[in-house]
Amino acid sequence: VLLTGGGGFVGSRTIEPLLAAGYEVHTLSRTHNDQPGVIHHDVDLLDDEATASTVAEVAAEHLLHLAWYTEHGRFWASPDNLVWVGASLRLLRAFTEAGGRRAVIAGTCAEYDWTTAYERCTELPRPGEDDATPLRPSTLYGATKHATHVAARAYARDVGLSLAWGRIFLLYGPGEDQRRLVPVVARALLQGQEAPTSEGSQVRDVMHVDDVARGFVAVLDSTIEGPVNIASGEAVSIRDVLRLIADAAGRPELLRIGAVPQRAGEPERLVADVRRLQDDVGFRSSLALEDGIAEAVARWGAELGKEAARTPGGALARDEQ
Amino acid sequence: VLLTGGGGFVGSRTIEPLLAAGYEVHTLSRTHNDQPGVIHHDVDLLDDEATASTVAEVAAEHLLHLAWYTEHGRFWASPDNLVWVGASLRLLRAFTEAGGRRAVIAGTCAEYDWTTAYERCTELPRPGEDDATPLRPSTLYGATKHATHVAARAYARDVGLSLAWGRIFLLYGPGEDQRRLVPVVARALLQGQEAPTSEGSQVRDVMHVDDVARGFVAVLDSTIEGPVNIASGEAVSIRDVLRLIADAAGRPELLRIGAVPQRAGEPERLVADVRRLQDDVGFRSSLALEDGIAEAVARWGAELGKEAARTPGGALARDEQ
Repeated sequence: VLLTGGGGFVGSRTIEPLLAAGYEVHTLSRTHNDQPGVIHHDVDLLDDEATASTVAEVAAEHLLHLAWYTEHGRFWASPDNLVWVGASLRLLRAFTEAGGRRAVIAGTCAEYDWTTAYERCTELPRPGEDDATPLRPSTLYGATKHATHVAARAYARDVGLSLAWGRIFLLYGPGEDQRRLVPVVARALLQGQEAPTSEGSQVRDVMHVDDVARGFVAVLDSTIEGPVNIASGEAVSIRDVLRLIADAAGRPELLRIGAVPQRAGEPERLVADVRRLQDDVGFRSSLALEDGIAEAVARWGAELGKEAARTPGGALARDEQ
Repeated sequence: VLLTGGGGFVGSRTIEPLLAAGYEVHTLSRTHNDQPGVIHHDVDLLDDEATASTVAEVAAEHLLHLAWYTEHGRFWASPDNLVWVGASLRLLRAFTEAGGRRAVIAGTCAEYDWTTAYERCTELPRPGEDDATPLRPSTLYGATKHATHVAARAYARDVGLSLAWGRIFLLYGPGEDQRRLVPVVARALLQGQEAPTSEGSQVRDVMHVDDVARGFVAVLDSTIEGPVNIASGEAVSIRDVLRLIADAAGRPELLRIGAVPQRAGEPERLVADVRRLQDDVGFRSSLALEDGIAEAVARWGAELGKEAARTPGGALARDEQ
């Protein structure tokens, strides 16, 4: 299997399950991947020629394409999203022309309509992968992912390539950017600082990154084609996630729910219809949210301990602020 | 205005109306454009760096992007369609970052759903540009054009670029590939050969290339944003088009309607809703179909005369076959 984004948040967690499933794992990226068991190819995926020649040389049967522009905070609107549409389509073509048979590419819940589909319906429908769910991305990130899928699925149909498109919802876990919700709140509380948050009334579908990674491998290993939501299917409010973090950190009294305004433009409710993933692929999350959050908070605690050890007086200095 | 595809079927006909509207016309393509009045830049649009530096240097306010892979017969399914998604998005970004303000890109009626939308409805609705018309392209060409639009409009919204997307329907006229319907039939009849055709029961929206070109310039000159059908809005059967050709060629008796089977996968009816073009942009076709076809047939007659003159005995040899 040709794996892109193998050094990333989700990608790095796919390597173990890929190896366990018996794949010979070839990682392709600019930055070296030193995870044991992988064969790494030093290639910038934005360099057409280098990518094409490496892909031809590897001649993999499977492709798991997770690489994209993912810089925290910026990825929603960065013009670099445009570049990744072209790079992804060229990669898919090179893979197919080198004899590739089965490809899975990472999509996003941001491809779904966040404005009309759910708010207006009293039945609170869930975004499904069928045509009944409108795809009307409100962000450049969502639009460019959707655009890539539109072109990729038409190409796959024409050339007889088996293609699935895994739409990721909210996720957390090891390797997460420190500026994301779980680490920001966990690290503040663990350091005895207050954690001001929004009301957190948004209802989401939250999955541990290891389940997301295993979900991708399960989809790759299956014969399912088209879009598949890679999510838990369980509805949880952000407020409840915050409380789980605070409980795990042992500092519920430092949580300041409602202290900052809710971000505009986000849907109230975004919970995946996971029938395709659970019934057709046969995959289910193995980590309960409570356990996953507890484990993540413990990990951030250990991380803070290491940081303090590296910076003599650091922990003290922080406490004095 | 930065013009791509300026040497092509539609693009070459936009130069006169662009100059007439007062634009300084910069053409960008691999092949030299020697039309009077244009400033040509020798650039392969698939070469990112060369394109970016030329676009930065020209620093145009307007962009009319018509270039795409258009090889007759092949363009519907060629993998080169994938390459043009990336090239178009990179071009749009380079144009915007060089100070561009207004862009118009060529889309296609093949972005619309050809299978369910019209056949199943007794009211025979027309594809409109609003959300009520499903976009479910059945060809790679249609899908890649649609994908480009999905990404381009999200980018334009984010950066405040004024962007319109002109969807072309059926067209004919000078510069047309000889393997297309009008020239194939006209040339056969003008040479005294039979012209076997399908039943031609499909109902289409047919526009002269000069009207398509003027339509694009009118859209560019307007402030309209989003998708705009560039079409006549008039329903005509292919059979009626064939009869107009035969009448203009003076050989109706050589037309063999129904001698070949109809191509599969094409919609019975594809006539544009042109309210946006006519009411919002204020543009209407100036060439009646009858006059346009008569002019096209006369032009193919003159062309055949020139070919015969270049090949001594050629016309005779053909008659003897």
